[in-house]
Amino acid sequence: MIVEVLNTGTELLLGEVVNTHAAWFGKQLFPLGLRISRQTTVPDGEAIREALSECFGRADIVLVTGGLGPTTDDITRESVAGLFGIDLVADPDVRRKIEVMVAERGFTMRERMLRQTLVPEGAIVLPNENGSAPGLYLPMRPAPRSPHLFLLPGPPRELQPMFAESVLPVLRKICGDLPARECRVYRIVGLGESAVEESVGLGLEKRGDLEVGYCARPNEVDLRLIGTRETLDEVEPEILRAVGSHLFSTKGENLEEWVVTRLRDLHRKVATAESCSGGLLAHRLTNVPGASDVFTHGFVTYANEAKTSEIGVPSSLMETRGAVSMPVAVAMAGGALEKSGADYALSLTGIAGPGGGSEEKPVGLVFIALARRGKPTLCKEYRFPRDRETFKQIATQTALDLLRHELLRG
Amino acid sequence: MIVEVLNTGTELLLGEVVNTHAAWFGKQLFPLGLRISRQTTVPDGEAIREALSECFGRADIVLVTGGLGPTTDDITRESVAGLFGIDLVADPDVRRKIEVMVAERGFTMRERMLRQTLVPEGAIVLPNENGSAPGLYLPMRPAPRSPHLFLLPGPPRELQPMFAESVLPVLRKICGDLPARECRVYRIVGLGESAVEESVGLGLEKRGDLEVGYCARPNEVDLRLIGTRETLDEVEPEILRAVGSHLFSTKGENLEEWVVTRLRDLHRKVATAESCSGGLLAHRLTNVPGASDVFTHGFVTYANEAKTSEIGVPSSLMETRGAVSMPVAVAMAGGALEKSGADYALSLTGIAGPGGGSEEKPVGLVFIALARRGKPTLCKEYRFPRDRETFKQIATQTALDLLRHELLRG
Repeated sequence: MIVEVLNTGTELLLGEVVNTHAAWFGKQLFPLGLRISRQTTVPDGEAIREALSECFGRADIVLVTGGLGPTTDDITRESVAGLFGIDLVADPDVRRKIEVMVAERGFTMRERMLRQTLVPEGAIVLPNENGSAPGLYLPMRPAPRSPHLFLLPGPPRELQPMFAESVLPVLRKICGDLPARECRVYRIVGLGESAVEESVGLGLEKRGDLEVGYCARPNEVDLRLIGTRETLDEVEPEILRAVGSHLFSTKGENLEEWVVTRLRDLHRKVATAESCSGGLLAHRLTNVPGASDVFTHGFVTYANEAKTSEIGVPSSLMETRGAVSMPVAVAMAGGALEKSGADYALSLTGIAGPGGGSEEKPVGLVFIALARRGKPTLCKEYRFPRDRETFKQIATQTALDLLRHELLRG
Repeated sequence: MIVEVLNTGTELLLGEVVNTHAAWFGKQLFPLGLRISRQTTVPDGEAIREALSECFGRADIVLVTGGLGPTTDDITRESVAGLFGIDLVADPDVRRKIEVMVAERGFTMRERMLRQTLVPEGAIVLPNENGSAPGLYLPMRPAPRSPHLFLLPGPPRELQPMFAESVLPVLRKICGDLPARECRVYRIVGLGESAVEESVGLGLEKRGDLEVGYCARPNEVDLRLIGTRETLDEVEPEILRAVGSHLFSTKGENLEEWVVTRLRDLHRKVATAESCSGGLLAHRLTNVPGASDVFTHGFVTYANEAKTSEIGVPSSLMETRGAVSMPVAVAMAGGALEKSGADYALSLTGIAGPGGGSEEKPVGLVFIALARRGKPTLCKEYRFPRDRETFKQIATQTALDLLRHELLRG
């Protein structure tokens, strides 16, 4: 089974947008026993026709992204119809869905949007729950030969749910009898990629019956194993021994999902008091549906006055020790705990940069505290000298991990 | 001048690494008047030979990344020598540099590393200041025709300095007299992609001397024009007329950067009171370096009690009108203004979903208020029935735009 990915979009080649589709597809396809043998990006417009016809000669499955929108540079539908020598037909169901969506959003239905209702004859419509342009699936044809062709929207927030709901089931049918290999992902926090490789990865690679991969994000590493279920079951105890409590999930959930779920199970709540992370910790927690069961109060006390007026940090403490200091982190967490009535409160105070650092307190320095009802407050010092956004990501990840360890203790 | 990019690397197709090369090259090439007409990724190994020979037939300049390392799957050098019918010769200067680097890092010189000293006859060596594998440049040949061919290392930290120091000067010579074309991006908020196209895009496309493109994000559209400076200057007034105050930037900045910069210029401050957006608004503002000059207090009042205790929203108001209502949004903004002492306060209260909606107050409903010192509070109702994260993104974008309009008034 030869799979190719064809991305269309001038913005990808001008460098305005980084193409994340190839990597994302690669991850989705692997568990099915499929690999991408080639990925191509072409600009919007005519170039897609040529690139598509080349894929036709080589591939069994072609995933095309982009060019399905309402504007004149979106010509994927027309190119495909031209290559197949078939007509585009307005689909009344698609039109109805677009009309409903447009009405819900309070937009005006515009003539141009009707282009999105055109479907190549014989194509199967893939619903788009997050946008107006539907995806399209044209099954393989023997003569003239064409591959299984999937036309998918460019924006990841539209493409990814559509792929999961409508494309994966078709692909599973197409490659039903490929050798069954499983993919397991061990999601790890608090250990670097090299440490994971050294402690367990190298040994696994030597076996020869496993494919071992790593994916690192700010303070998070995925150890990915591909093999038969038997092999994976056999090595699992070894992995658990090696990474211990650094492993937090094998289900692909992220750390905030883990924390919110666990808090809900325990009927407990957390509050946040953020300085350098500027609301990201609250944002991450509230990205989890149902977060309101466990999160009620967040304080973004960016200025010293706010730390004093909102969560009672004594201004004398900031004068003597500085706003970025362990006692201030402890006072922030304590104040947030008291004001919110929650069971836990996490606080962060640090220097995100690029400005504001000094020799004594450099950019990247951060104090993270966890106040606990009826127990002493924990506080640790860290250094994450990175760009501003990565700093915020790592710092909040570390704060969530501090709470995770507390929740593991019961 | 036709430019192609060929990326090699199995990890790019398995999804372990996102390919940032195409976007990066795109940005570097544009000022030279060059555009990438196609980008291709193939796995390590034999596939590179076929992809390279296809490029030879089409392109004038080919940038190849990866496959220059010491391991057996790194065969870019061999593939190129094979295609050209030339020999690989060990280069003593390259060897000396590798020996020095290996000694400096305290490694052992391994036999395999000597592969990296091999240079196709007639190729120009491009020094690698950040790694062991040098880059290679093979100038264009007339018969058999071959393009200007650059072989560059895969890791961005090696490739990017090498490109700047050794590739750009050659490219500048090659395309010295290309007509200079400029790219302008008009960033628009509060108008959909179709509306932008209808109001101004279609007219611009008809001219024939402009390339017109669009890129849509949650409540944000980029209108991208490419043409000569004269043409762009000529049409600019028409664009400004058509999109009016929906246009917020031509410099590529995002809305939070615009808002923070403008607030700083005016010596004013903003506070936030967030319910449904859960801290994202504060996070976006504090992503901007120097946000502390304009942002001091953020309240994430996720629960009703927090709205009352932290920013003084009367609980009777929530009982009678509901927490998601216009008077509560107004009270939140007013409370945050008073508590923070800021000049403006933005508040959001709504239903992010997926749960919590009702017929009267469906998922996606949100009230956004802007309290202003010495002026009445503004408040508007919106419906953004989208997935939870997109909802938060659109809602905060809309809140920032409300403040932007206020700041435009002075």
